[in-house]
Amino acid sequence: MDYSQASLDKHKQFKGKIGIVSKFGPIVTREDLSTAYTPGVAAVSKLLAVEPEKAYDYSIKSNAVAVVSDGSAVLGLGNIGPYGALPVMEGKALLLKEFAGIDAYPIVLATQDPDEVISIVKNIAPGFGGINLEDFSAPNCFYIEDKLKAILNIPVMHDDQHGTAIVVLAALINSLKLSGREAVTTKVTICGSGAAGTAVSKLLYLFGVKDIIMVDSKGIISKDRTDLNDAKKEFLVFTNPQNLSGDLATAVTSRDVFIGVSGPNLLTPEMVKRMASKPIIFAMANPVPEIDPQVAKEAGAFIIGTGRSDYPNQINNVLAFPGVFRGALDHRVTKITDDMKLAAALALASYLPDSELSVDKILPSPLDKGVVAVIAAVIR
Amino acid sequence: MDYSQASLDKHKQFKGKIGIVSKFGPIVTREDLSTAYTPGVAAVSKLLAVEPEKAYDYSIKSNAVAVVSDGSAVLGLGNIGPYGALPVMEGKALLLKEFAGIDAYPIVLATQDPDEVISIVKNIAPGFGGINLEDFSAPNCFYIEDKLKAILNIPVMHDDQHGTAIVVLAALINSLKLSGREAVTTKVTICGSGAAGTAVSKLLYLFGVKDIIMVDSKGIISKDRTDLNDAKKEFLVFTNPQNLSGDLATAVTSRDVFIGVSGPNLLTPEMVKRMASKPIIFAMANPVPEIDPQVAKEAGAFIIGTGRSDYPNQINNVLAFPGVFRGALDHRVTKITDDMKLAAALALASYLPDSELSVDKILPSPLDKGVVAVIAAVIR
Repeated sequence: MDYSQASLDKHKQFKGKIGIVSKFGPIVTREDLSTAYTPGVAAVSKLLAVEPEKAYDYSIKSNAVAVVSDGSAVLGLGNIGPYGALPVMEGKALLLKEFAGIDAYPIVLATQDPDEVISIVKNIAPGFGGINLEDFSAPNCFYIEDKLKAILNIPVMHDDQHGTAIVVLAALINSLKLSGREAVTTKVTICGSGAAGTAVSKLLYLFGVKDIIMVDSKGIISKDRTDLNDAKKEFLVFTNPQNLSGDLATAVTSRDVFIGVSGPNLLTPEMVKRMASKPIIFAMANPVPEIDPQVAKEAGAFIIGTGRSDYPNQINNVLAFPGVFRGALDHRVTKITDDMKLAAALALASYLPDSELSVDKILPSPLDKGVVAVIAAVIR
Repeated sequence: MDYSQASLDKHKQFKGKIGIVSKFGPIVTREDLSTAYTPGVAAVSKLLAVEPEKAYDYSIKSNAVAVVSDGSAVLGLGNIGPYGALPVMEGKALLLKEFAGIDAYPIVLATQDPDEVISIVKNIAPGFGGINLEDFSAPNCFYIEDKLKAILNIPVMHDDQHGTAIVVLAALINSLKLSGREAVTTKVTICGSGAAGTAVSKLLYLFGVKDIIMVDSKGIISKDRTDLNDAKKEFLVFTNPQNLSGDLATAVTSRDVFIGVSGPNLLTPEMVKRMASKPIIFAMANPVPEIDPQVAKEAGAFIIGTGRSDYPNQINNVLAFPGVFRGALDHRVTKITDDMKLAAALALASYLPDSELSVDKILPSPLDKGVVAVIAAVIR
C-alpha cells in the first residue's frame, strides 16, 4: 500500500506530529504562576547554577533527547536539506515518545559544515540528556559523531549507523540459528558502504563474523582500489580477508548472507542463485529494496528481510533506538559503547522464543512495545 | 509568600515542566507507523525539500518557538549559565503553551560568545516559526538581536527588552490617564540602562515621552560622562534633553515617573518626596524591588507597580510575550516592528475599561487569558 497521500493529508491536518504539554498542569492561580515561573523558579535556577548535575532531577534534561539532522542523507531521498528532513525528525521524536516515553525534539540545521554541526550540537547540549544524530551522510557522519562523543558527557548516537547495525545483527543472529550456521564461518557480503553499511560491518565483525566483503558503487572494496577515501580504507583492516576484487555478482558468489543498504533492484535473481545454499538476504534499501522479496524467494532465498512494513521480516530501526535511548537515559550512560550495542542486538534477537522463530519471523514486529524494556535493560 | 520550596518540590516531582505529546495519537497499527514515519513520511519530505514554505502547513514550524538563552542575565540572578537558565526557559515555554497555545522549546547554550550564539540560532531556525531570545545580558543582547533580525525571515524578539517595554508602556499609559498627565509633558527617569531599560526608553520615546533621563550605577547618563560604551552613548541622542548630571537623587527630583529595572532598595522614601506631586513609580527589580510598595505609598507615591505577584499592579512580561508570538505566528510576521510594539502596548492599556482602572489596578492580572487575543490581533 502507498501511504503517501494518507501521510500528506494527516501532516497537513495536524500541522506536524508533535506538540508541547505542561507537566505542571494548567496555570490558573497566582500560586501556579509563582511556582512554575517567577518568583519561585529563581530557587531552582540558583540551585542548578551551582550544581548543574541536579538538572537531571529538577529540569527536563533527564528525559530530553535532541533529534538532530543536517538533511544530507534523508531516508533514501538523499541530500534534501533541513525542511525535507523535518518531517522525519518529527517522526523520530514521535516514536521516541510513543515507544519509550522519551521527550525528544527535532532540530534541523541550516548548515552541513561538519565543524559547524559539532559546534551547534555541543552548545545546545546542556538542556538535553542525549543526542540522536539522524540522516547525516558519510563520511561526515563518522567525524561528527566521533567528535561529539569525545566532547560531550551525554550519550550521542547516529541512529542510521548504530540503530541499523543493532537490528541487522539481531536479524542475522536469528537467521543463522534458523539456517544452522555459525557466525565465525559465515560469509557475509554488504552492499553499500555509507553510514549504515559501515556500522553494520563493524558490529558484525565484533560479534564474530570474520569473512565480510564490502561493496560500493565501484565494486568490491579491496586493497587494489586506488579511489578509496579514508573512511573506506578502514574497511581494508577487517574485511575482505582474501582481497577479492570485482563487481557485485562476484561479491555474492558462494556467500551465505547478502546485506543491502544501497539502492533499488541491485540484486538480481541470477545473483541469488550464485550464492551459497539457503542464502540469507536482507534487502533494506528504502522504499524499493535491492530485490523484490517474492523474486528473491523464487530465486531460492531461504530468508528475505526488508525495511518495508508490507512484507514479512521488517528490519526497522524502531526496534532499537527507543530502547537504546531509554536505557541510556535511565542508567545515565555517558557513552553508548560497542559492548552495549552487542548486548542490545543479543537482547533483541532473544526477545522471541526459538519456538516462535521462523523464516518469515526472524524479528518481533516493529509495533511490539515490549521490545523497548529488554533493550533498555542492557544499555548500562 | 515565598514560593522557593514549593517550586523546588514541584520541579523535582515532575522533573521539569514540559513534555512532548503526539498530535497523531498513539502509534498502534502498521498504518499509524507508515503514515507518521516510513514509508509515508517520504512524500512529506519530498514536498518540503522542493517547497520549504510548505513547512508551515505540513510540519510543526508554524506553531514552534525556540526559547533561547545563554544564561548571562537570568532573572535578577545575573550570569548563572545554561543550567541556571534552563528552569526559566522551560517556564517561558510552559507559559507560551498555557497562555497562547504555542509549542515552544527551551534551548540553553553552552557559549556566551555573541557570534557563536548568532550562528547557532541561525542554523537551528529552519524548524521554528519564531525565536524568543531570553535573559541575554547587555550590550551583547542588542548585537545578537539586531543580527538575527537581519539574517532570519522569522520573528526574533528579545523578551527582556521588548516584552518589558510593551508592558511598561501600557502601565504608563493608564497611570498617566489616572493622574491626568499627557505623555509629551511627562518627565520620566529610568533607573537601569541594561536590556530592559534601553528598550523601555526607546518605546516610551516613540510613544511621545520627550523628557527621559537614564540612570546607571554611575549616575545620570549625560554628555559629560567619559565612561559610556557604544550602547549607552545611543541614549544621548534622545534622552536627557537638558544634559543633567548627578546621582539618582538628582535624577528623580521633580520627575513625574520613576521606572526601576535595576536593583533592590535603590529608591529611598526621601527620593520619592523629591519627585513631582502624584508620583508614578514602577519598581520592577526582582525579587526585591527598588522600593517596598508600602514604603513608597507612605512617602507619597500615587501609583506603585512592581514585578511581584504579591502586591497590586504586577508589571509582568507574561502580559505581552504570549500575545506577541501568537500574533506573529498567526499572521506570519517576519519582523516584530516598533509600530507593532506600540500597538501591543495600546491594546494592552485599553484592555481594561476606564471604569475598572484605579491606582491599584493599572493593568489586567497576568493570569487573565483574554489578554493574548487582543495583543495577537495587532501584531500584523
